Amino acid sequence: MGEFDLIKRFFTHPTPKAVLGVGDDCALLQPRPGMHLAISSDMLVSDRHFFADVNPRTLGHKALAVNLSDLAACGATPVAFTLALSLPEADPAWLGPFAEGMLALANAHGCELIGGDTTKGPLNICITVFGEVPQGQALLRSGAKAGDDIYVSGTLGDANVALAHLLRQRREAPDSTQAFIALSPADLSSAMARLEQPTPRVALGIALRGIATAAADISDGLLGDLGHILERSGIGATLDTASAFTLMAAHRTSTQSAQLLASEAMRPVVLRHVLSGGDDYELVFTAPASRAAEVQAAAKAAHTSITRIGQIDARSGLRLTDGNGRPVDNNFQSFDHFA
Amino acid sequence: MGEFDLIKRFFTHPTPKAVLGVGDDCALLQPRPGMHLAISSDMLVSDRHFFADVNPRTLGHKALAVNLSDLAACGATPVAFTLALSLPEADPAWLGPFAEGMLALANAHGCELIGGDTTKGPLNICITVFGEVPQGQALLRSGAKAGDDIYVSGTLGDANVALAHLLRQRREAPDSTQAFIALSPADLSSAMARLEQPTPRVALGIALRGIATAAADISDGLLGDLGHILERSGIGATLDTASAFTLMAAHRTSTQSAQLLASEAMRPVVLRHVLSGGDDYELVFTAPASRAAEVQAAAKAAHTSITRIGQIDARSGLRLTDGNGRPVDNNFQSFDHFA
Repeated sequence: MGEFDLIKRFFTHPTPKAVLGVGDDCALLQPRPGMHLAISSDMLVSDRHFFADVNPRTLGHKALAVNLSDLAACGATPVAFTLALSLPEADPAWLGPFAEGMLALANAHGCELIGGDTTKGPLNICITVFGEVPQGQALLRSGAKAGDDIYVSGTLGDANVALAHLLRQRREAPDSTQAFIALSPADLSSAMARLEQPTPRVALGIALRGIATAAADISDGLLGDLGHILERSGIGATLDTASAFTLMAAHRTSTQSAQLLASEAMRPVVLRHVLSGGDDYELVFTAPASRAAEVQAAAKAAHTSITRIGQIDARSGLRLTDGNGRPVDNNFQSFDHFA
Repeated sequence: MGEFDLIKRFFTHPTPKAVLGVGDDCALLQPRPGMHLAISSDMLVSDRHFFADVNPRTLGHKALAVNLSDLAACGATPVAFTLALSLPEADPAWLGPFAEGMLALANAHGCELIGGDTTKGPLNICITVFGEVPQGQALLRSGAKAGDDIYVSGTLGDANVALAHLLRQRREAPDSTQAFIALSPADLSSAMARLEQPTPRVALGIALRGIATAAADISDGLLGDLGHILERSGIGATLDTASAFTLMAAHRTSTQSAQLLASEAMRPVVLRHVLSGGDDYELVFTAPASRAAEVQAAAKAAHTSITRIGQIDARSGLRLTDGNGRPVDNNFQSFDHFA
């Protein structure tokens, strides 16, 4: 199968929103009047962001999901995306499910594949995604104000526990002596779904327009991504680790799971996965305390759970506290590709 | 150097045209009223599109140039781009000149770096570029009509001769018995510049708005890229190989060079490089014969030479002729990553 057959067979679909889709030198878009075009680009590299033998269907989903998550963090409505793909070979048995996984998520969000590139090379997926957001309503990292509440959506840490499990299975764990959360098979399966098929919080991002003062998506770990908000907003925060601790989904699945996570040995491990695990693709956002009811209403409208985990301070820096407001050491490290 | 320091140091620059540039989850653009946003994405892979030890400054130039070339082919004015970069390591000695080469070209075209991604992995550069084109004026591949003249800009084949030279030097030539054009040192140096620092024909593309009926850029070889126009326009063409033969720049540099290329042994080799070499990043375009004077005026205004090389036919298929209109066999193959 040649390059152009491959594009026709797997990646050419109707694009009613776009002026022009796949097949020319450029695609053409026209944002609606009064709209800004929100743009984000993410590159996923084999053996870095995913294992080369991962299910291609879930990989297709995830590659688009991590981009949609950036639109969600800006409160933008997905419109279109381009896909640049470097492939070791043109294997229809791989490309078929990859394209299906990607396009199922794309269709669910009305996000059209309008162009891209295919080349031979080490497996690499680069998506650039386009969304619309009304002028002046984009959620930025820079708008947090002292006194704002800090919230996160959904659950945190489970994806990172699943990753730790996979690394251990492959004997690639960075430190095999590190304490390990032995989830039940059912919990592990749910955690694996969080790792491999994250849910971009698009509806929540849109619902928070005009309410949230700042937002970011959690890809590199809560503390790191909250840190970006603090840096861009020029402020600090106090984060309640007791609230954060409860964010792992496995707390809620059975008494047995809850007991495991709450054990003395597991508590710090749970906290590490929640605070600095990454791969969550939830939103961390801030809003004035006076608008707490509107925040809850937005979450309800978006069918997305949210948890208040702290408060923005005028004083710079990020402080962690326990459930009684006492300081907790911050020895958590977020993900950095080159650190 | 960490991931975020790297982005700050090398890839964060003022973006007066954009609503929001590097540093948030998304960048924000707002096309001017009446404008469509033209979008193209190209991925360059190490050891596939370039040698890993290529000068990073020229690589930075080329990575953006091949994308600007797609905007040129649509007649779009460059506005902005995103850069996703997979790097084996964060080496300032490589990143510095890479960023400089890229940004020098970007600045020359008023094209702002507004976002992207950096990750660790095999060297891979994925750029998505954005341009503006007035509604209804984009040059598409689909508009060629029977009777239109076919033109190409600039010179063709030299980049591919330079590549053949590099492959031979590295003993990676696909077929070492294949006839080889032994360019003079001066000609080889010029050809190498064409390979490593192609000139996107942005001004020509803009000047051809409303005049050209179809256009494409020549990345995979003239015949292949003209073939895309024929396919999308549902028509055929006759191409004069005698005109095409003259398109190599080395014809014009010295009597000695001209004699070398015109020799019986070299003629078919020259034609192969011109017709199916690729990496030219010139434009192939069509225009009604009645508008030949306007085409020439547009080329003059854009300070870009053009050559008429054939004509669009109602009959499908691509026919090659010699200088006297007699048929010539078409045994030229364009580049395909998976063929």
